[in-house]
Amino acid sequence: MRNIISIFLVWVFSTGMITAQQKDSVIIKSIFDNALINSDVYANLDFLTNKIGGRLAGTPQSIAAVEFTKQVMQKLAIDTVYLQECIVARWERGREFAQISSQRFGNKEINICAIGNSIPTPEGGITAQLVEVQSFEELEQLGRKKIEGKIVFFNAAMNPKFFNTFEAYGETAKYRVFGASEAAKYGAVAVIVRSLTTSIDEFPHTGVMYYKPEAGKIPAVCVCTSHAELLHKWLKQDANILLWIESYSKTLDDVKSYNVIGEIRGSEYPDEIITVGGHLDSWDIDPGAHDDGAGCVQAIDVLRLFTALKIKPKRTIRAVMFMDEEMNQRGGKAYYDNAVRNNENHIFALEADMGGATPRGFTFDAEGEKLTKLLALKKYFTHYEIYKFMKGWGGVDIKFLKQSGTPIGGLITDWQRYFDYHHCANDTFDKINKRELQLGSAAMATLIFLIDKYGL
Amino acid sequence: MRNIISIFLVWVFSTGMITAQQKDSVIIKSIFDNALINSDVYANLDFLTNKIGGRLAGTPQSIAAVEFTKQVMQKLAIDTVYLQECIVARWERGREFAQISSQRFGNKEINICAIGNSIPTPEGGITAQLVEVQSFEELEQLGRKKIEGKIVFFNAAMNPKFFNTFEAYGETAKYRVFGASEAAKYGAVAVIVRSLTTSIDEFPHTGVMYYKPEAGKIPAVCVCTSHAELLHKWLKQDANILLWIESYSKTLDDVKSYNVIGEIRGSEYPDEIITVGGHLDSWDIDPGAHDDGAGCVQAIDVLRLFTALKIKPKRTIRAVMFMDEEMNQRGGKAYYDNAVRNNENHIFALEADMGGATPRGFTFDAEGEKLTKLLALKKYFTHYEIYKFMKGWGGVDIKFLKQSGTPIGGLITDWQRYFDYHHCANDTFDKINKRELQLGSAAMATLIFLIDKYGL
Repeated sequence: MRNIISIFLVWVFSTGMITAQQKDSVIIKSIFDNALINSDVYANLDFLTNKIGGRLAGTPQSIAAVEFTKQVMQKLAIDTVYLQECIVARWERGREFAQISSQRFGNKEINICAIGNSIPTPEGGITAQLVEVQSFEELEQLGRKKIEGKIVFFNAAMNPKFFNTFEAYGETAKYRVFGASEAAKYGAVAVIVRSLTTSIDEFPHTGVMYYKPEAGKIPAVCVCTSHAELLHKWLKQDANILLWIESYSKTLDDVKSYNVIGEIRGSEYPDEIITVGGHLDSWDIDPGAHDDGAGCVQAIDVLRLFTALKIKPKRTIRAVMFMDEEMNQRGGKAYYDNAVRNNENHIFALEADMGGATPRGFTFDAEGEKLTKLLALKKYFTHYEIYKFMKGWGGVDIKFLKQSGTPIGGLITDWQRYFDYHHCANDTFDKINKRELQLGSAAMATLIFLIDKYGL
Repeated sequence: MRNIISIFLVWVFSTGMITAQQKDSVIIKSIFDNALINSDVYANLDFLTNKIGGRLAGTPQSIAAVEFTKQVMQKLAIDTVYLQECIVARWERGREFAQISSQRFGNKEINICAIGNSIPTPEGGITAQLVEVQSFEELEQLGRKKIEGKIVFFNAAMNPKFFNTFEAYGETAKYRVFGASEAAKYGAVAVIVRSLTTSIDEFPHTGVMYYKPEAGKIPAVCVCTSHAELLHKWLKQDANILLWIESYSKTLDDVKSYNVIGEIRGSEYPDEIITVGGHLDSWDIDPGAHDDGAGCVQAIDVLRLFTALKIKPKRTIRAVMFMDEEMNQRGGKAYYDNAVRNNENHIFALEADMGGATPRGFTFDAEGEKLTKLLALKKYFTHYEIYKFMKGWGGVDIKFLKQSGTPIGGLITDWQRYFDYHHCANDTFDKINKRELQLGSAAMATLIFLIDKYGL
């Protein structure tokens, strides 16, 4: 096969009968080949996850991640690497413990974790009767009489029928994000939310929550799906289950943090900027292999691929490691504010934040002719089984750029197993396959190469 | 999203304006939904890999697998479950040990495993100087003078540039399969072959080998890629490395074994048979999650889906767990011989033997109008991101049916990580994602449903 390709290329070049698309295909093949041979992207993720680990914005680990990715990009033959300041809020997990007690079944410790932004329990924790609901509608039906003074257990599972697991997540995340405020309206004293994951396992999955201004603040934790099933089973046979939760999280003072930016300046249109990024922070309990160490090391690899293959972009290509995606997107906002302040012209921005599995396509938040142009790029990718080019979202960190009309896009991966690992201690390096990760870099570099070459 | 689909379906049915393809889409959606909700396929694979484990043909474990899959199918509301006899050759691994010795670097134990069918070393093992080659061409260049009395180290890595990892495997497998015979021609006393895998790890990967009649028989082992790299490094700096190999494999008497067959008889054309299968045996050291426990439990799940959804096939649908794919394909041959003897008319056969990752398409070994019909089925699958419908191979066990003109096909999965696990102790249940496995069942059931409905 290799020989056939080589002969083909020699023939193509020697005859001079080469079309623009053939030329592009040769470069795209060199991008994929190089990505599949090189190990940097995998080694960088190894370091980020195994040597640094969970890196919530504002933590020392997040600053280690800033320093590490800065150093990695400084070793590349690119024009500049710099840090971009942002101020991040800090939330810190404390000791956590939960136990259910039933006169019928006895006591059992269950696996929980505080939801990000949650207030702590008082010293000694909260002990109260447990009430299970599957939805906000059910909560409303039960009303204050049945909720007041109790702990509400939101037991809504992600719907396995969605082929796109992100749609299932989108449908169910509201219980984690707003469950506490909704339950507080009816006088609940705390909430425990079934972890958002497609698997039944022992890992509690965290994430962010927000308190609505109109409701009181009560503590919120997630329970692993295996124990959510257990709670459900016990509650069916014993309506008087007590839950004791301890969670001593803290809200600390805001601190300075950074986006990390590496840049290759454009040779013809340096003022036209194409950004490619991932987010550098991860949850404190989550080593962040899929979410989103993968996206960061892949964005860096896009720059490495340009330099390794001596592709001189016409436009400026920036790899950005955004800080604080998980909590408040202060990095994304800072990036946008800087872009506005400096009158920067972003012609496109791409974010990779769907994990490190095999790339399947791109989704674009763009309109009109630009969208048409972006969708038409599919033809360059089908050899690599990247078929899904669709209108849709971009990314959480780059969405701000959309306000100035920049078309944005997101890398679509094979998303079936993403939520098994999402926001929990199981999002480890060994869940990443090297080739799948490398193919993601290649797909991103190819898209950026084409947009740079043909403009938008 | 769910609501929109429900409303759509109600509208579709109520108007009576429903096309055949819409009707099929409703059934196909029910197949995927049911597959994604049901856990049998995952639980069955758990049992096969964790409770039974490695199950080389003829071993007690292989018979446990026969009994288990028979019992699983007997619980389904299908017409018949039976065993089909085949006689299998037996090869049994013995104690294995290897150590390299260098005056410069000292001694180091390395991870090896005998290649299936290899003769043993004599008692006490073989100790000889190690000579590295990358190819048969290099072996030939070195010639008898430099090879005689030595152990040949075939250090050809799978080429990472192949997007299709099976092509890379196909290119490199010859060193494992025929390396011993080629080296024996030049007087080598044993061969050690770099494991066929896309990853660098500590697991030796086995597989089958054959001795060519014209060459003497010498022992053959595989070395894990991590230690292959080490051997290469040492040999560059010390040409006089000694390798000591012990491997006490045995060839035992042939024994009786079985294919396991479950069948739903066709309501209109019971004599037209559609077969769907995987192979039940795995390598002794390989729990066989991806290779090929996945294919077996998925084939069973095809029957379960038909019964659960009350789809009455017009043609006879058979799920077949083939025995002895890894060594001599005696199960596949026995199935074919029986088909010929009984004058059976197989209109199609499908094999799933590319691992349990997300389904990406189907490959068909068929011609003319039948191929055209098969390729045209793609339109039913694109919603599930199954895009790759191509002419190609079928499967190792069903290839015999091709001799009678039966069109055959294979399930294509996301094959990037398959060879990380292939034929080694790392092919464990935890490397399987439940949803990816379930989607494979659904894809296979859908293909069989369409072929049954429309014929071929």
